[in-house]
Amino acid sequence: MSQDPFAWTAEALRRRRAAGLLRTLAPRPADSPLLDLAGNDYLGLSRHPDVVRAAAEAALHWGAGASGSRLVTGSTELHARLESELADFCGFEAALVLSSGYAANLAAVTALTNAPGGGGLLVSDAHNHASLIDGCRLSRARTAVAAHADPEAVAKELAGHTRQAAEGPALVVTDSVFSVDGDAAPLAELAGVCSAAGAGLLVDDAHGLGVLGDGGRGAAWAAGLAGRPGTVATVTLSKSLGSQGGAVLGPAHVIAHLVNTARTFIFDTGLAPAAAGGALGALRLLRAEPGRAARTRAAAAELHTRLAAAGLEATRPDAAVVSVRAPSPQAAVEWAAACRAAGIQVGCFRPPSVPDGISRLRLTARGDLAEQVLADAADTVIAAAPHTG
Amino acid sequence: MSQDPFAWTAEALRRRRAAGLLRTLAPRPADSPLLDLAGNDYLGLSRHPDVVRAAAEAALHWGAGASGSRLVTGSTELHARLESELADFCGFEAALVLSSGYAANLAAVTALTNAPGGGGLLVSDAHNHASLIDGCRLSRARTAVAAHADPEAVAKELAGHTRQAAEGPALVVTDSVFSVDGDAAPLAELAGVCSAAGAGLLVDDAHGLGVLGDGGRGAAWAAGLAGRPGTVATVTLSKSLGSQGGAVLGPAHVIAHLVNTARTFIFDTGLAPAAAGGALGALRLLRAEPGRAARTRAAAAELHTRLAAAGLEATRPDAAVVSVRAPSPQAAVEWAAACRAAGIQVGCFRPPSVPDGISRLRLTARGDLAEQVLADAADTVIAAAPHTG
Ligand SMILES: Cc1ncc(COP(=O)(O)O)c(C=O)c1O
Ligand SMILES: Cc1ncc(COP(=O)(O)O)c(C=O)c1O
Repeated sequence: MSQDPFAWTAEALRRRRAAGLLRTLAPRPADSPLLDLAGNDYLGLSRHPDVVRAAAEAALHWGAGASGSRLVTGSTELHARLESELADFCGFEAALVLSSGYAANLAAVTALTNAPGGGGLLVSDAHNHASLIDGCRLSRARTAVAAHADPEAVAKELAGHTRQAAEGPALVVTDSVFSVDGDAAPLAELAGVCSAAGAGLLVDDAHGLGVLGDGGRGAAWAAGLAGRPGTVATVTLSKSLGSQGGAVLGPAHVIAHLVNTARTFIFDTGLAPAAAGGALGALRLLRAEPGRAARTRAAAAELHTRLAAAGLEATRPDAAVVSVRAPSPQAAVEWAAACRAAGIQVGCFRPPSVPDGISRLRLTARGDLAEQVLADAADTVIAAAPHTG
Repeated sequence: MSQDPFAWTAEALRRRRAAGLLRTLAPRPADSPLLDLAGNDYLGLSRHPDVVRAAAEAALHWGAGASGSRLVTGSTELHARLESELADFCGFEAALVLSSGYAANLAAVTALTNAPGGGGLLVSDAHNHASLIDGCRLSRARTAVAAHADPEAVAKELAGHTRQAAEGPALVVTDSVFSVDGDAAPLAELAGVCSAAGAGLLVDDAHGLGVLGDGGRGAAWAAGLAGRPGTVATVTLSKSLGSQGGAVLGPAHVIAHLVNTARTFIFDTGLAPAAAGGALGALRLLRAEPGRAARTRAAAAELHTRLAAAGLEATRPDAAVVSVRAPSPQAAVEWAAACRAAGIQVGCFRPPSVPDGISRLRLTARGDLAEQVLADAADTVIAAAPHTG
């Protein structure tokens, strides 16, 4: 018998290293000199004094942890307040806060497809986030993967389902803004297709909240879908709200159903008070200063204009993410390293972690940066670009 | 077409209410007058001044959120420090911190069974926690559910696997202390069975850390398994450490493999600094005052003695949880309500959320309570007990 039953993991690491694909952690100090264009803190709120103060005060007042499941001892009035203000802001009837956006997606996808009679259908966009994909894998419903951002493909899958005799609930699942390329889903068209087929629509608004819609109310709001009976949204508290956690937003009976059946809600410790408090502080800032979302979108547009003017193949941003094509995986890695050497941290994506095989840099246009800082950053990225052609 | 594609959830709620099984949230104030014997804050550290201060200071110093995946911008030196001190305390080579214990279990179970060649086997205890079960469902390995706390049953499943030609890795998965009844797994025997079959052992030490082993080093340490090449443990930061989050503990190559392949690590925002800071504060308290774990075990033993002396059918506690049998689901609910009316919050479990169909109260013996407080609480639970026979 093998001495080490996990020896195969060491072998897998060796192969990964040989292929130049090894991932390692690089812990940062609190005062990193790098300009962060790689994270998802789109409004720069994770370091905003009001937000960190709200987080710290929540820890002091409510404790460092929630102490148990939300169904036992883990629900505080702070969680309830956050849920009510979040639902109100985003235009939904009710909200349920979970310990992460990942957990919120697992909860929503499974609970909204595991109907008593079974036989459900999930239609999932080909570029969806890992947490939605894992939700599909955990659900007992059949999953059909539809071509990216293609309402007709979705309609075809739904038509096949509703023709069957003993149909269960059908749910269409999509990111609102896709995390790698930053492109938006055709939400209004998808809602039309869902409505015609009697299917529900689940929108993961992780990258829309705080950036899209009036004052940052999100992509579902922007598409006129917030609060409609057929729409449920998930959000994260970890990106524009600068904290940690996730939430499901929808009609009150849908939220109550999640309380009763979603395993990642029932069997998980409630979100730590500091995270709930920080997110609530950020939410109140969004309300008090509604210009932040538009400023972030303008920053992304400006970043794209500059990169495109320099001849780079950059995606036109639908939210805060600008993705720039690299000629090869190797070139992408070197480009990101050159940016870093010049003081700017950018995201670097290449196969196998891109849905389409294309290597690129991913830049997030933070709304809290001064125009000149962003302009200089664009110049740096341009100067570091690989020579092509 | 239906106007409301989620109407079936309202119908499911009606059936649940009619059956007396509806779960609702009851948010608590910060200064609840109830004595909490229902949560998992076994050492009372979630409200300890040192721990809440550490959480608050981490938010002020590091920000309210981690801002991105641990692989992009979300790894801070605070996370690295927590990982190194946690691994050292528990006796493992390395640790990886995730956003929840739930996420840690999903990460460990999937990453340690999805070997390149496939064909893995998972052997899972019949009473395992939901997060381990979901990990099994997400894994591509075949899952065999073994009878509760039964090393022979596990050995049989492993023997069947190793006889096959193209075998993948085999992993035995168990809670160290089962959350509802508080009974301990036969870890030493399971490790022997695993070792003989060349299988790995994954121990979920959510309810062992802080309570079992020297100074609270956990169940794997207590069984002499910590740091062995074949053992991996998961822990939560949300129970004895009074915070939020989870971690995987094991050999360095196993941890590096998780960094490279575990989806709930790679595609999730890093744990919020306040939660990491709070957990680190609690860990240092455990080291500085190593009597806390033994005090908690003594409190549980005392609670059991008092309940048993009064003729109640209470489980002999292996850690901090004492479970007391109720004659019926209805009686359990009424008993818990009577305790609450008398100022004590206890857990109440009944079908379908118990693995064996038995309704019971679940009491956690907190090590920070004065002897007299716990004695009075036992008297209250006894006085509120349903009349039987
Ligand atoms: C589209 C999308 N959904 C969900 C998540 C998960 O959210 P969280 O990191 O808060 O768990 C992420 C990123 O992490 C994401 O990009
Ligand atoms: C045995 C066990 N494992 C894992 C978990 C999940 O940990 P967390 O609540 O930190 O996500 C829990 C409880 O919540 C548990 O009881």
